[in-house]
Amino acid sequence: MSEKLNIKSKFRNYSVNFIDGFQKSIEQNSNENAYILVDRKLMELFREEFDSIHPKSHFISIKANEANKTIDYCQNLIKRLVEKNIRKNCAIVAVGGGIIQDIVAFTSSILFRGIDWIFYPTTLLAQADSCIGSKTSINLGIYKNLVGNFYPPAEINLDLAFLETLPVAEIKSGIGEILHFYLIAGSELLEELVNEYDELLTNPSLLKKHIMESLRIKKKVIQIDEFDKDERNLFNYGHTFGHAIESVTSYGIPHGQAVTMGMDIANFISMNFDYLKKEDFSYMHSLLVNNMPSFCLQDDMIGKYFNALSRDKKNEGNQLGCILSSGPGAMKKVFLPLDNKLKSIIRSYFEVKL
Amino acid sequence: MSEKLNIKSKFRNYSVNFIDGFQKSIEQNSNENAYILVDRKLMELFREEFDSIHPKSHFISIKANEANKTIDYCQNLIKRLVEKNIRKNCAIVAVGGGIIQDIVAFTSSILFRGIDWIFYPTTLLAQADSCIGSKTSINLGIYKNLVGNFYPPAEINLDLAFLETLPVAEIKSGIGEILHFYLIAGSELLEELVNEYDELLTNPSLLKKHIMESLRIKKKVIQIDEFDKDERNLFNYGHTFGHAIESVTSYGIPHGQAVTMGMDIANFISMNFDYLKKEDFSYMHSLLVNNMPSFCLQDDMIGKYFNALSRDKKNEGNQLGCILSSGPGAMKKVFLPLDNKLKSIIRSYFEVKL
Repeated sequence: MSEKLNIKSKFRNYSVNFIDGFQKSIEQNSNENAYILVDRKLMELFREEFDSIHPKSHFISIKANEANKTIDYCQNLIKRLVEKNIRKNCAIVAVGGGIIQDIVAFTSSILFRGIDWIFYPTTLLAQADSCIGSKTSINLGIYKNLVGNFYPPAEINLDLAFLETLPVAEIKSGIGEILHFYLIAGSELLEELVNEYDELLTNPSLLKKHIMESLRIKKKVIQIDEFDKDERNLFNYGHTFGHAIESVTSYGIPHGQAVTMGMDIANFISMNFDYLKKEDFSYMHSLLVNNMPSFCLQDDMIGKYFNALSRDKKNEGNQLGCILSSGPGAMKKVFLPLDNKLKSIIRSYFEVKL
Repeated sequence: MSEKLNIKSKFRNYSVNFIDGFQKSIEQNSNENAYILVDRKLMELFREEFDSIHPKSHFISIKANEANKTIDYCQNLIKRLVEKNIRKNCAIVAVGGGIIQDIVAFTSSILFRGIDWIFYPTTLLAQADSCIGSKTSINLGIYKNLVGNFYPPAEINLDLAFLETLPVAEIKSGIGEILHFYLIAGSELLEELVNEYDELLTNPSLLKKHIMESLRIKKKVIQIDEFDKDERNLFNYGHTFGHAIESVTSYGIPHGQAVTMGMDIANFISMNFDYLKKEDFSYMHSLLVNNMPSFCLQDDMIGKYFNALSRDKKNEGNQLGCILSSGPGAMKKVFLPLDNKLKSIIRSYFEVKL
């Protein structure tokens, strides 16, 4: 378990280290100059493990919910850290999933114009996707993820043991993002992942090779286009249509599963615009279907869904920025007006029993 | 007046364009996708010039004071821009000095994970120094400049005409930073600047070559070390001791003049630590003396001054991070404990009539 993946970044190069035993590793990173910020739930789940780590006064537990993913929360966190005497040459150690990552990365990026942070990702989404790539997302009032920036950790330590604590829905969510990377890159592991699907849900330690492969695919692209100006845009595949599902369900559907359906919608649109052959749509649908959320868009919700699409921050003017596909490994970015034709395609996606 | 200086940055390369006639230039950058943020005072001073620029609904005037250099102000600005329908592919045009730069750069850096901004610096400090180098500084509660990050403009348009509007104190402040660059680099223009001093105060258009030379000196260093991890640290020369003067005078002394005295203090300490010969101290003092602020540290304020020094964010533990000198072009970074020896040297600096 000593593999590592080195990532080149505009800010600093960093690595993902596959570790065995987070307790010992965090202990090694704990000292007078380190501040440990942990998801409150994990503090409870691993009370014994965290109890042995010192100094206790440098621990802060964070409730990982969307309401805390705000600039105001980050400002308060900065005040608490400064009161605890944090200095520019100190480091923050973060233990948690995507929300903890967003809060800690954003906070670290603006405190003293940036201080080091070390990340222990604990969800499959964070391990297989968000831990690399530098992005932060912060809510501002009613606007979800309106604010953010880029700021990678100095080091990522990835312990699969955390995955044992996750509900199945969270594993499915992570698999959604892995599927998304596999389809974008046309990965050789795509069919293997789909064939192993049920086993992966019950024995998450099998996920290691898929986490590694996802990160490898993502690494190649973010090293070329860290700031998401060009090549990295392709990673929005499934996300435009998936975000809108999350939005109309008040984020009741786990992100990666919404993305899974989002990819299916993008493929359906691709087919209707003659980018994707019918048999390729069906093949890709067969890969996605097991991980799709049980979600039906009620007739009276379609207007809300279109509204959510039209507010996507990647749009330009009235054009929807979306990634279409002509098969695994073959994606392209297009701008489509959200006109009657597109609306009617999307409407029929939700009407047809696929 | 068509010179330009190209700057390489980790974020994007950008250029400083010396322009003649900001009105026409801003008009060219104004369109449905541009939002113009202007120092309120300049809006009044140049009412006629700004009146011809459209669309009017995309103008926001900002009161340039420290109280507005906060995250809360930036959040409100983001809300106003979003209500005015700003999109990821839009740009912000900023017209003003350092405070406007800090507010707009920070806001642009976090809105949609970064949108383009175009800068028209209007003070000598902003033109000769802060406009390049990507730094932002934001206040948080009682902590001045605690928060910030790095985010350069996409383009800088520099019109000397703005300097005509500045009070002499602001010109002196800018000259302080120019002196600081000249001493760090041992510039050939150092003595010329000092000899022309009185003329520069009354005819700021003569400042052009000095602005250009300062930016050239700064450019070389920030291109190597944009994130201020190493070589760029030398630019703290005069700043540690200058910031503390600003702090104990409640920012009553203009920044660049405090830095001028800060350099003199750093040189005095250098002499007392045998880094700098007595005659070199005297020579450098003779270059600085005209631009020094009229500031005496009263006996009962010395404790406050030491406190301000000890809170400097560049300190490590109890060691003061400071830049000492053994002459023009010869600076070095040292960490000094703020012990009785150093305190007594600083005390005697303020006691001796230099």
